[in-house]
Amino acid sequence: MNAKYDKDLPIGVFDSGVGGLTVLKAIRSELPAENLVYLGDTARLPYGTKSPASIERYAIQAAEKLAEQGIKMLVVACNTASAVALAALRADLDPLPVIGVVEPGAAAAVHARPGGSHLVLATEATVRLAAYSNAIESRDEQATVREQACEMLVSLAEEGWTDGDIATRIIRRYLDEANEGGFEANSIILGCTHFPLLKEAIREVVGETVAIVDSASTTAHAVRETLQSGGQMRTAREKGDQRFLATDGATRFARVGGQFLGHALTFRDVELVDL
Amino acid sequence: MNAKYDKDLPIGVFDSGVGGLTVLKAIRSELPAENLVYLGDTARLPYGTKSPASIERYAIQAAEKLAEQGIKMLVVACNTASAVALAALRADLDPLPVIGVVEPGAAAAVHARPGGSHLVLATEATVRLAAYSNAIESRDEQATVREQACEMLVSLAEEGWTDGDIATRIIRRYLDEANEGGFEANSIILGCTHFPLLKEAIREVVGETVAIVDSASTTAHAVRETLQSGGQMRTAREKGDQRFLATDGATRFARVGGQFLGHALTFRDVELVDL
Repeated sequence: MNAKYDKDLPIGVFDSGVGGLTVLKAIRSELPAENLVYLGDTARLPYGTKSPASIERYAIQAAEKLAEQGIKMLVVACNTASAVALAALRADLDPLPVIGVVEPGAAAAVHARPGGSHLVLATEATVRLAAYSNAIESRDEQATVREQACEMLVSLAEEGWTDGDIATRIIRRYLDEANEGGFEANSIILGCTHFPLLKEAIREVVGETVAIVDSASTTAHAVRETLQSGGQMRTAREKGDQRFLATDGATRFARVGGQFLGHALTFRDVELVDL
Repeated sequence: MNAKYDKDLPIGVFDSGVGGLTVLKAIRSELPAENLVYLGDTARLPYGTKSPASIERYAIQAAEKLAEQGIKMLVVACNTASAVALAALRADLDPLPVIGVVEPGAAAAVHARPGGSHLVLATEATVRLAAYSNAIESRDEQATVREQACEMLVSLAEEGWTDGDIATRIIRRYLDEANEGGFEANSIILGCTHFPLLKEAIREVVGETVAIVDSASTTAHAVRETLQSGGQMRTAREKGDQRFLATDGATRFARVGGQFLGHALTFRDVELVDL
């Protein structure tokens, strides 16, 4: 980080919808003094089933909206946008530091299970790009990786059906598909920000010996390291602000988003913006 | 229908994605000589969780794209867009005839179960607008209507998990929610174009005595009537053309769309357009 930004400027966190609030929550917990501004592109979600060209265009529009507001760093808290558009975002926003969730997630998985058999649960677009496979294999030559598209898990999390029989059966069906041909994972990567809500249900299906990795907390570590190394940490003692922007549906954002954030939001907490 | 259009012009059929292909298929079967052009707004699907203002804007952009191509009628083969934006579309495209799927679906339900207890399965946005309730109650004062948002059924249909245990359990859960307080439906309206794919699974859950109504075939009848009364039926003996336009993801459109259309498509059959 060579360019200097005002330390009081917020960290911008961007996602296609509300799932990235799990990452915001982790950053908040790791760095409580930082100001945060979150943008959910709810008018065009989900990204996971869209084409790479559309995802890149949407991601750049959203990132530029945050950059306009003044931010000192961008966190791409969306696996699909990280997999598809990270390089384009870095080029577009240079010299602003841009952190995605795929690299921290891959690093966490390799750390948890060196030489492991990793199963990545993600959206169609993320799987198609094989971003996690590339990131893991470049870190650990012994690792094997399989990726499984799990669109139904997204709606399961949005509907709030995160436990019980239906969740268990859907998870089991995807894992059975992924394990065809005898692949046996000892690490499962939650490669979509919706999936941490299903962590306990997944744990129930796979048992205690499999590592379940999500990128939220490792991304928060990466944010801390980048801020520290650039001398850009906010030093205030009081808690930082949080602002929530969305491109559509403040009421739904508040209702569904509260589940991801872990505390209630109301539509008054959400500002609508146009991209 | 006062304005006169060239009878060889296609009927435009518009949906947020591929679900409306069930309506296209019904029109094709009812009126094989007609030329058809289908537009799926796959770049911004689903509409069902978006705000009314966004849905109306998207629907008008899509409809104008079809109107530019030259059409003699517009069919809004999307329940959400029909519920939210039909009046706005009619005003915008006047004098072009515009037919939605809600009115034909409501008419079919009232015909199947006069004075009936109707349960509408639909998206969040359609339920919020209560368009089916209004359309049914204005036709049949004795009818009672309840509407149930069922977002998981959309992804179930897209994933192709249309039978088996998971489908049955999800359907049962929504029906249990809808039937709280002792409501007992004798008519179920498939108020989303994705849901005809789940008709057999729903039948299995509700048994033989409940009428299951979808708007595809009644919408096709309404198209015929409007063409006939305006003297705008195509009289050619050969089969009409079909064209498929999408705003994103030709490959996915072809793969998922084939399930709704009932025959295979390839990405070469799909033209990408920008709205």
